[in-house]
Amino acid sequence: MEIISGKDIADEIKAVLKESNGKQGLYPCLAMLDVGDNQENSLYIGLKQKAIESIGGKARIIKLSGDIKPNGLLEQIKILNEDEEVDGILLQLPLPEILEPLREKFLRAIAPHKDVDGFNPENRGGLLGGEPVFISCAALACMNICQRFKTPLAGKKVLLIGESFDVIQPLALMFINEQCDVTIIPEYDPEAMQNMDIAIIEKGTPLAVNNQGVKPGALLIDAGFHWFQNRTCGNIDRDALTEVEGYLLPVPGGLGPLLIAHLLKNVSQAALSK
Amino acid sequence: MEIISGKDIADEIKAVLKESNGKQGLYPCLAMLDVGDNQENSLYIGLKQKAIESIGGKARIIKLSGDIKPNGLLEQIKILNEDEEVDGILLQLPLPEILEPLREKFLRAIAPHKDVDGFNPENRGGLLGGEPVFISCAALACMNICQRFKTPLAGKKVLLIGESFDVIQPLALMFINEQCDVTIIPEYDPEAMQNMDIAIIEKGTPLAVNNQGVKPGALLIDAGFHWFQNRTCGNIDRDALTEVEGYLLPVPGGLGPLLIAHLLKNVSQAALSK
Repeated sequence: MEIISGKDIADEIKAVLKESNGKQGLYPCLAMLDVGDNQENSLYIGLKQKAIESIGGKARIIKLSGDIKPNGLLEQIKILNEDEEVDGILLQLPLPEILEPLREKFLRAIAPHKDVDGFNPENRGGLLGGEPVFISCAALACMNICQRFKTPLAGKKVLLIGESFDVIQPLALMFINEQCDVTIIPEYDPEAMQNMDIAIIEKGTPLAVNNQGVKPGALLIDAGFHWFQNRTCGNIDRDALTEVEGYLLPVPGGLGPLLIAHLLKNVSQAALSK
Repeated sequence: MEIISGKDIADEIKAVLKESNGKQGLYPCLAMLDVGDNQENSLYIGLKQKAIESIGGKARIIKLSGDIKPNGLLEQIKILNEDEEVDGILLQLPLPEILEPLREKFLRAIAPHKDVDGFNPENRGGLLGGEPVFISCAALACMNICQRFKTPLAGKKVLLIGESFDVIQPLALMFINEQCDVTIIPEYDPEAMQNMDIAIIEKGTPLAVNNQGVKPGALLIDAGFHWFQNRTCGNIDRDALTEVEGYLLPVPGGLGPLLIAHLLKNVSQAALSK
């Protein structure tokens, strides 16, 4: 398997953005809402801050207490919607347990033209027959890799494993629109890998996916993240695939950096169309 | 094949709605926008009018000239959004050619809680990880038949043929949420029918689908409508399936009446939650 470096492609995307933003005098501003004390959330927000600064933009981090009332959070979103300096708004998920049931309400409150995560129902709905302003960055990142390594996409057999609203569901719609044969299954099954040109595996267990059934020349994208045996890994056991012809976007160093690069693209686009 | 009568099930749904609306003193009002001189549109609107009246509701038909300006149509939608008597609003599609490129804008203008077709992007987006107020009636009708004849759905192998935003795409998301194995292909291919428990065929040519590859016990739903050799037909050649064990929702007498019954359910729900 050829191992695809998500980091290298992300760096390439960032270099292009930095140059084009510079030329156009754009300084994209990304506001991130960090609710409660979730260390992992703060870590991701830190990575996104560093990334936006690396392309000449800036981050504004709004740290909110975990016991904020729903109306308080809605008010914060409203302020950011109306703030002309802010190009993109991101509500870091998951929310504290008590707010999570209202997630849909908060996502709906983010102005669609600042919704750089593509999570507002209006942007999600645009995927069905319309033209969303923004699409989920993880889905965009997967599609980017497919377009680089498996073009033309029309007619390709694509397997998606999982059911998430931010990766699998938008990808299902995007591949339908690309005239692919798309199969979505809730759990990994080696038999389902047969004849697949592309497989994107989000739901799974650490390193469970091996070479069984993998078609020579296939593109595999690992969209799982686990902390396992003292290291980060995904669903795919890359060592088991060494001898198989094809392409692998691995974890770590794959989807993570690419997802952030696509977030930067979305924020730059928001700044440009302001 | 056991031929499923969409008409009988639709009559059953309508009888239940008539009784429950009567008990609750509900007289659901459905407003339908008929833009331009499209005879087929007027025919469908007539059928829906008859149907809503049959369950104790009423129809309001707003006939608009085909050369109405976009703002004029938006204004009509706004009036209906604000009219407290109106429970559901339906913009009959397709629009005249000149307005069709703005379809998304008109659909977005319909208040989500009156959008009984489920075509507003906010309702479409609710299908990805949220809870839409309303779902496309054709998709609901297909799902109803699957739930009646192929329960439990989890684990079933489902084939969808086509890519429409009102049938295939919402169904793909609904079956993902039911934990099915879902495959979507852009065109009929007999090989793809193998091992499928359910096949819903929207895109196709008259009577092209026969018994090839059909798994015994499968449920086939014909979602194609053609005028062919002086009669209405669908994509499935029911005569070729006579000897195969399983279930068929045919055309005519299948999805058409069921779709209208689900529209009535949506309008009644809109009236109830007012």
